[in-house]
Amino acid sequence: MACAKKLIPLLDRVLVEKIVAPAKSVGGILLPESAAASQVNAGKVVAVGTGGRAKDGTNIPILVNEGDTVLLPEYGGTPVKLGEKEYVLFRDDDLLGILHD
Amino acid sequence: MACAKKLIPLLDRVLVEKIVAPAKSVGGILLPESAAASQVNAGKVVAVGTGGRAKDGTNIPILVNEGDTVLLPEYGGTPVKLGEKEYVLFRDDDLLGILHD
Amino acid sequence: MACAKKLIPLLDRVLVEKIVAPAKSVGGILLPESAAASQVNAGKVVAVGTGGRAKDGTNIPILVNEGDTVLLPEYGGTPVKLGEKEYVLFRDDDLLGILHD
Amino acid sequence: MACAKKLIPLLDRVLVEKIVAPAKSVGGILLPESAAASQVNAGKVVAVGTGGRAKDGTNIPILVNEGDTVLLPEYGGTPVKLGEKEYVLFRDDDLLGILHD
Amino acid sequence: MACAKKLIPLLDRVLVEKIVAPAKSVGGILLPESAAASQVNAGKVVAVGTGGRAKDGTNIPILVNEGDTVLLPEYGGTPVKLGEKEYVLFRDDDLLGILHD
Amino acid sequence: MACAKKLIPLLDRVLVEKIVAPAKSVGGILLPESAAASQVNAGKVVAVGTGGRAKDGTNIPILVNEGDTVLLPEYGGTPVKLGEKEYVLFRDDDLLGILHD
Amino acid sequence: MACAKKLIPLLDRVLVEKIVAPAKSVGGILLPESAAASQVNAGKVVAVGTGGRAKDGTNIPILVNEGDTVLLPEYGGTPVKLGEKEYVLFRDDDLLGILHD
Repeated sequence: MACAKKLIPLLDRVLVEKIVAPAKSVGGILLPESAAASQVNAGKVVAVGTGGRAKDGTNIPILVNEGDTVLLPEYGGTPVKLGEKEYVLFRDDDLLGILHD
Repeated sequence: MACAKKLIPLLDRVLVEKIVAPAKSVGGILLPESAAASQVNAGKVVAVGTGGRAKDGTNIPILVNEGDTVLLPEYGGTPVKLGEKEYVLFRDDDLLGILHD
Repeated sequence: MACAKKLIPLLDRVLVEKIVAPAKSVGGILLPESAAASQVNAGKVVAVGTGGRAKDGTNIPILVNEGDTVLLPEYGGTPVKLGEKEYVLFRDDDLLGILHD
Repeated sequence: MACAKKLIPLLDRVLVEKIVAPAKSVGGILLPESAAASQVNAGKVVAVGTGGRAKDGTNIPILVNEGDTVLLPEYGGTPVKLGEKEYVLFRDDDLLGILHD
Repeated sequence: MACAKKLIPLLDRVLVEKIVAPAKSVGGILLPESAAASQVNAGKVVAVGTGGRAKDGTNIPILVNEGDTVLLPEYGGTPVKLGEKEYVLFRDDDLLGILHD
Repeated sequence: MACAKKLIPLLDRVLVEKIVAPAKSVGGILLPESAAASQVNAGKVVAVGTGGRAKDGTNIPILVNEGDTVLLPEYGGTPVKLGEKEYVLFRDDDLLGILHD
Repeated sequence: MACAKKLIPLLDRVLVEKIVAPAKSVGGILLPESAAASQVNAGKVVAVGTGGRAKDGTNIPILVNEGDTVLLPEYGGTPVKLGEKEYVLFRDDDLLGILHD
């Protein structure tokens, strides 16, 4: 498996593709770095595990779904590269919230 | 999602907008910094999660409601910027109490 | 809410007003500092939370009541200022005992 | 409450009055310090709490009773002064055992 | 047992044979080290334990099966040599996910 | 209680009298120190507590009985002197095993 | 008990006799140290405890049996000498797996 294409996360893990702030505004003007930095630290959920395990082994449903846009913690997460794409793997209870326009 | 507008916190997290002490008194006189500092460290609850997870996965109801004014701990909380507004995200059991006039 | 007047503690927290040892004896004589220092580290319960949360989320009744005089631990507690008055917020299981004349 | 006289310990706490080894033997001869030091580190139980709290909040009966003579751990305990008398407050599961002649 | 040939892992342990990235491309050209390094940190499951133990002793089914290709954490695992072959032993909840082409 | 004679250990504690290796062999020859040192670190159980407390407060029967000879851990244990005799107090789950000739 | 001969481990402890790699090959040729070092770190189970204790005190069956050959962790274990023989005492969940030819 030189380059795996797909990852099914285990347990309460969630695979997220980070949303990178556009360097240029809609009008094509180069945004100052500070503007980019002020963007929310968010990502798109690409794949979810089956859920966490309680102390007695019972399954705990996962909190988010594929397609959700989530607010990411400042630290943590495991970088994962699948093919040419880069993702980050989080535990669902490290995700801060679900973002809506 | 250049700038998300709304955040639904996950689990037992609570989104709070800090109440900033008025720099000027009602009569418009500039309050000395000490006066501001002596204000209570409070905030308004803007959004709440669905509740925490007990060890066996069962849901634990959240402690506060949108609109409550809460006494904040001196430390902790995750700063979150949504659009132009700044908020802080707390776990509900880090909030010290509900304030009333 | 420039100055909140009332605080309802959350969970197993207890709001206590410290009992400050009288600097002068009943006869009005200035007590030496050591005498004050030898006083018990006590306080009056002003407000109590609804109780703690067990691991499975069930409520654990609070240990003390408003009006009780309690023996305070040497360290810990969160200082809280409401209006001009100063209080300290404790978790109920940090309180050492209930004092009686 | 300049000087509280009585303390009802909270939870699994036990109020103990330390047994101080007699500096003189029965015959009135001054015991060498080493003799005193070799005495057992013991105390008399003066007051007991209602018992500890299990994880689910249920009450756990206290282990000792008022009047018991107990073997104390070398370290730990919170010093408490009530009136002119000095006591030490322990958690019941820190007490090592009950002593009998 | 000069050289054991087979290992049945205990509890929730999983025996994994690491997938080493091919130093040469399909066409036989020597891949630069960076290419190899960019490969996913993966391995083939060779043997699994019977499952973990919950706090009350009940068995918790193992998460993966023999033959699965799994994404490995960057750190951890116990190196094990059986005969001439090298393996790594992981706890199942340290494995990040199951990889598919 | 100048010198308590008897101790009833509390909870899962076990009072043990260490078995000191004979300095002389049966034939009366002075054993080299190394021989003594190579002896097993063992002791005789003199008194046992009523048992440990599970998280929910239920009693957990004690593992050993008075009269058992037990293998002691290299470290740990609380020295206790009763009258002229010296003992060591262990928690039962720190004892390694029961020794038989 | 100058030299105890037999040890019944307590709880989930397992008494293991380490398998020492033969310094000479079958043909009697002195194996280089590296060959010995490359041997698996294994041992024979000599005696097992009755099993571990869950949080609520219930018994958790032991994982291995007398006579099993087990893969040992690189570190840990308590050395025990019984008579002239040397053993190591492990907790059963520290053992990595059961080895088969």
